[in-house]
Amino acid sequence: MHEAHQEALATLEACIVACNTCFDACLNESHVTHMTDCIRLDRDCADICSLLSQAIVRNSPNIAVLATACKEICLACAEECSKHDHDHCQKCAAACEACAKACDSLV
Amino acid sequence: MHEAHQEALATLEACIVACNTCFDACLNESHVTHMTDCIRLDRDCADICSLLSQAIVRNSPNIAVLATACKEICLACAEECSKHDHDHCQKCAAACEACAKACDSLV
Amino acid sequence: MHEAHQEALATLEACIVACNTCFDACLNESHVTHMTDCIRLDRDCADICSLLSQAIVRNSPNIAVLATACKEICLACAEECSKHDHDHCQKCAAACEACAKACDSLV
Amino acid sequence: MHEAHQEALATLEACIVACNTCFDACLNESHVTHMTDCIRLDRDCADICSLLSQAIVRNSPNIAVLATACKEICLACAEECSKHDHDHCQKCAAACEACAKACDSLV
Repeated sequence: MHEAHQEALATLEACIVACNTCFDACLNESHVTHMTDCIRLDRDCADICSLLSQAIVRNSPNIAVLATACKEICLACAEECSKHDHDHCQKCAAACEACAKACDSLV
Repeated sequence: MHEAHQEALATLEACIVACNTCFDACLNESHVTHMTDCIRLDRDCADICSLLSQAIVRNSPNIAVLATACKEICLACAEECSKHDHDHCQKCAAACEACAKACDSLV
Repeated sequence: MHEAHQEALATLEACIVACNTCFDACLNESHVTHMTDCIRLDRDCADICSLLSQAIVRNSPNIAVLATACKEICLACAEECSKHDHDHCQKCAAACEACAKACDSLV
Repeated sequence: MHEAHQEALATLEACIVACNTCFDACLNESHVTHMTDCIRLDRDCADICSLLSQAIVRNSPNIAVLATACKEICLACAEECSKHDHDHCQKCAAACEACAKACDSLV
């Protein structure tokens, strides 16, 4: 694995954790109704980050293609999460923004 | 699920089957050495098709983004598989080309 | 792919569709608060069914192990979904029960 | 996320990396023919570890079920990898054994 990839991998892993943590916490919020977009995007984001992180480690020929998609989904998740004051949403937004930047470096 | 999505879903499911069948058959070929690119692409292709097919069914806001990536990976897999005479490779190439077209309709 | 596996595959694919449809519909319900366990289980169930379906097609040596886990998760999802009157929940419960039986045949 | 889960998560992430690294390296070996079982198990193992790691973070009700399956697949992958002298296989075997133990603690 290239050194630049190693760094991106850590950022992706952190984003997967933030998105799944936010997914779980959103489902536990009293006002779940306001969190449904967040729940959807958390799942999408965790899944594409997971796919990309595995592709990076095995030197897949499709890293750039997956990183392009992952960046877009991270940005969408960051935008939605940043609207909510919950700590888990704010943390998730930050993790997704960092991940979007890491994806940019892979394109 | 929209009707157009229903059709794309069937094409994606067929592509997942073709890619995993090809992955398995390539690993059983006597000249595995010639099939390594195919094996890599079969895995990548099955995984992104699987992600997209699930996203379609749950009306994810990221269908177009995932379909763009899926199309590229399908085309790469089709190109590699079409180089090999094995029946499983030819079938996989055809399934991937059909899937790339289905992805195009989702973008 | 063995013929018995072909049949199980169709049941798994139907279950993935039912779970993702239910996931989406639950998030659109006015009383999302009552559907959070359903949403969690729908995601878990779709993901393990997806993993198993791919493993079946590529003749993985781990089909029985995955089918054992898949059966348990299908039963848990069926139990939760069957508590709710929504059409998507009832359909999902039926799909999960059928899938649990299909998994049993793979163990 | 529980503290014990945090530790298991790190072990799972290391196992995903080891398995994908081994998958890639096996495909680059001159004697790929000898590595086909390893390639199959690396993929299976990375995929179930990935599923379990995400389930842990979102406090899924199915952690124990997935960990039971993950343990078995880790042990199978460790057994196969340990037969090969390649550094990547030896490292993968060690990562899988550690992961099997971590899974045991989750059951």
